[in-house]
Amino acid sequence: MTDVRTGPIQSTFNSTPQTGMQQAPEHLFILFGATGDLARRKLYPALLRLWNEKRLPNKFALLGIARRPYHHDSFREQIRQAIEEFAPSAMPVAGDWQAFLERAYYCSADATKPEDFPAVASLVKKLEAEQGIPTHRLFYLAMAPELFAPVADQLQASGLTDLGDAPVENDRQAPWKRLIIEKPFGRDRTSAEILNQALRRVFAETEIFRIDHYLGKEMVQNIEVLRFANALFEPIWNHRNIASVQITSSETVGVEERAAYYDKAGALRDMVQNHVLQMVMMMAMEPPSRLKVEAIRDEKVKVLRSLRTLKEEEVYQHVVRGQYRGGSMWGQAVQSYRKEPGVQPQSSTETFVAARLFIDNFRWTGVPFYLRTGKRMATKATEIVVQFHNMPNHLYFNPEGQLQPNLLSIQVSPKEGISIRINAKQPGTDAVVVPVVMDFCQQTESPEAYERLLLDAMHGDATFFTRWDEVQLAWKFVDPIADAFTDHRLPLEPYAAGTWGPAVATQLPVAEGYQWWPLSTQTHEEGLLHEPI
Amino acid sequence: MTDVRTGPIQSTFNSTPQTGMQQAPEHLFILFGATGDLARRKLYPALLRLWNEKRLPNKFALLGIARRPYHHDSFREQIRQAIEEFAPSAMPVAGDWQAFLERAYYCSADATKPEDFPAVASLVKKLEAEQGIPTHRLFYLAMAPELFAPVADQLQASGLTDLGDAPVENDRQAPWKRLIIEKPFGRDRTSAEILNQALRRVFAETEIFRIDHYLGKEMVQNIEVLRFANALFEPIWNHRNIASVQITSSETVGVEERAAYYDKAGALRDMVQNHVLQMVMMMAMEPPSRLKVEAIRDEKVKVLRSLRTLKEEEVYQHVVRGQYRGGSMWGQAVQSYRKEPGVQPQSSTETFVAARLFIDNFRWTGVPFYLRTGKRMATKATEIVVQFHNMPNHLYFNPEGQLQPNLLSIQVSPKEGISIRINAKQPGTDAVVVPVVMDFCQQTESPEAYERLLLDAMHGDATFFTRWDEVQLAWKFVDPIADAFTDHRLPLEPYAAGTWGPAVATQLPVAEGYQWWPLSTQTHEEGLLHEPI
Repeated sequence: MTDVRTGPIQSTFNSTPQTGMQQAPEHLFILFGATGDLARRKLYPALLRLWNEKRLPNKFALLGIARRPYHHDSFREQIRQAIEEFAPSAMPVAGDWQAFLERAYYCSADATKPEDFPAVASLVKKLEAEQGIPTHRLFYLAMAPELFAPVADQLQASGLTDLGDAPVENDRQAPWKRLIIEKPFGRDRTSAEILNQALRRVFAETEIFRIDHYLGKEMVQNIEVLRFANALFEPIWNHRNIASVQITSSETVGVEERAAYYDKAGALRDMVQNHVLQMVMMMAMEPPSRLKVEAIRDEKVKVLRSLRTLKEEEVYQHVVRGQYRGGSMWGQAVQSYRKEPGVQPQSSTETFVAARLFIDNFRWTGVPFYLRTGKRMATKATEIVVQFHNMPNHLYFNPEGQLQPNLLSIQVSPKEGISIRINAKQPGTDAVVVPVVMDFCQQTESPEAYERLLLDAMHGDATFFTRWDEVQLAWKFVDPIADAFTDHRLPLEPYAAGTWGPAVATQLPVAEGYQWWPLSTQTHEEGLLHEPI
Repeated sequence: MTDVRTGPIQSTFNSTPQTGMQQAPEHLFILFGATGDLARRKLYPALLRLWNEKRLPNKFALLGIARRPYHHDSFREQIRQAIEEFAPSAMPVAGDWQAFLERAYYCSADATKPEDFPAVASLVKKLEAEQGIPTHRLFYLAMAPELFAPVADQLQASGLTDLGDAPVENDRQAPWKRLIIEKPFGRDRTSAEILNQALRRVFAETEIFRIDHYLGKEMVQNIEVLRFANALFEPIWNHRNIASVQITSSETVGVEERAAYYDKAGALRDMVQNHVLQMVMMMAMEPPSRLKVEAIRDEKVKVLRSLRTLKEEEVYQHVVRGQYRGGSMWGQAVQSYRKEPGVQPQSSTETFVAARLFIDNFRWTGVPFYLRTGKRMATKATEIVVQFHNMPNHLYFNPEGQLQPNLLSIQVSPKEGISIRINAKQPGTDAVVVPVVMDFCQQTESPEAYERLLLDAMHGDATFFTRWDEVQLAWKFVDPIADAFTDHRLPLEPYAAGTWGPAVATQLPVAEGYQWWPLSTQTHEEGLLHEPI
């Protein structure tokens, strides 16, 4: 059971530029890719929820841009349908629909055609003038990454990124522009640098918000709180007490409709370079001087700088790449990756990566960080398990070293929670020590990552977005591994769909005397759950 | 929710002389005070449960001794009635009653009359001979402490403590005698020493088992395991991480039928000198070299030696004594202590004690241990709360020092469990840190303390019994306080029945900036339980 023992004592993050309950500033949300999947599945539901919670200001408008020949009204109907399909729980009570939908406007334009941009620009300026919205422009590019640079160029050419220099009444009216983009940020360090240079011709680094939606997840944001607001954990958060850290992000789905992109990217670029390394950084960073965005990002970058880069000949020792074959999931046969529509029949793209990382600094010396991520795995879960050192052998309750280590588990999804496994005496006259688990489980529904991140971007809070040097250093770490994959310097291990990946990945922690711990979802699904003692 | 995550991994205490599942050795259980309250409420149920669990050997007999003129059969009927009244859940299925009751014998004797002892002695020898029980004699004196020394003398005079020197077939046959006694062990250091000298004329220190039934409680025994089998706790178990320790042992009952004894003893002698200080020792002791009885007791004694003795003039600063007045409990009026039957109308006996202790060693320097115990309090509970240091002010989530400290709570009774209170992020876009509680709660019924302790004594394991020097040093600490009470050097604070004691006791931790934490039972009873976040 979980409860708050001493009542509603609350501590707000006053020292940081967190957004809290604050309403977003007045702005125009300019969305490229307005008819696409991301917009329909994530962005419209997130905007509507923000609207329902009164986090959007009165002077707000959404301008959707895509090729299809919609009008404002038909676009509004599209939004309504998207909500009904993907987020029915977000639907407002009758009257409020209209108020939200009336904020939505549409401009049909082909992002690859420079000649279409003047119409966009004039509609932006018209909306701003008509609705009295200050020059606060949030550009969201929900589109293929090849278009990021060309669109940025056209935004500039059309004058949309020109904020003017008219005097303003007060600071809240001071004009701004921001750009939100989604991964992939390049496919290696070189291409990422080229992309970045192109964007930087138009937007300053502080204006670029690179979304990593894992950073919008409640429990990933909770890592900071766990580490820095608890005297229980802060003193033991180092190699003297922690034996290893395991990060799993597993999916049960296959490539589905993303095959064309995924077959070129693979699990390493799709998951490790961004989401998984972000979790490594959150777990491993030194306490920042303040919980302010640049101080935190500085510490995260230091983790990447301390990551031991794998030399070409070391990759095969520390990394496993796998690709799923056919198998059985939920009692049904599922097909091999190479037979999925849109995948090359001889594809050597990895759908699974496991790796052992070391962070060479005083805090983490000698502590292996094990990562694994993949598709068509046994369970869908993102979970971090911290394993503490074993108690000394031969001592006390541990004569044959059989005493189980303490574990701290941070469950990111689908369950959100924290568990601690400790050793306790089994009740009864028997003198038996058994591991028991103490749980804290989020009971309320957490907001979607996008809801939080959009609001942060509206406020200009980049804490949970990725800074350029994080992207750059993450590629620096990933590139030698990707090269080894390309050159086939390590085998592509097949694994049956519905399993925990190749056997060699299961063995990865064994070299140091560890094992992958069952995830909290597994204990239920695989019958490992035992009655409480 | 509580579960054992990785299955039935069990670690037995092989390194220690724990009794585990082992059957007790063959012996004769010689019980003085066989018709008394303790025997009927606690000892017969405990023996029967051990019998049901096959922990008692085939060659076992119980010899009850008291003044009443029972015969074996009428004594057996008395045992059956006691079980039915006080421990119906212990009743065996039909047939087994007889097998247990047939082990019971009775000898009518007045413990104050030397002339009654030869009959006891001859029955003991007759039973041993008839049943083939080796000379293994466990004497349990469930009687007034004034009788301890005279009975011991008569046991000796009657030859019952003479083990003979006949050769034995093997070690398990080697004769032994043991004495089990209950508190009070004297009423101050001098009287305790006199009592001890008398007992030691007949029994060696290793043959004397001083029961402190708190040491038989599951969660008190679990303190060792928590501390020494968990890498999470071991490194932070000191003044650098722990701010204070609070020990509460509260009762809701008044003095009831114990008034005659209690009015002479008071809460200090009845609870603090033994139970509460034992819990202090378990929490504070250094890791022993081995988990063996004398190594553990050596460490416990070191805690008492490090206890800061209160000088006469200091008692009033660190100790509160209280006595209950009338009040309301469970919606009914209850009367003042001084109006209880058997209590002197002008009695100044304390029914409540609170105190602040310091343990002057490297581990605990500067950490106040707050104790409180009393009758007619708001809740019946025994619970230990460890408060960790506050996080630094102004830092991170703690700009105004409002962040709540981490707490570890060990619930001894009536609930048995462990809770940890940590700080976590409140879900939602709000940046709010709130305390959340992670619980581990014993789900199975723990054995009664007496069941465990009797079995230990049968095995000769004295780990959870009190050694003489513990008794002696506990009195050394308590005596100056008792003297201050006697001399009225600190006020007798009245408190209303059904409350948490005198206001001045509530204020005790405030001097160091602390507070009494609500107990886990309180959060429910007093409506402090809040919805999980």
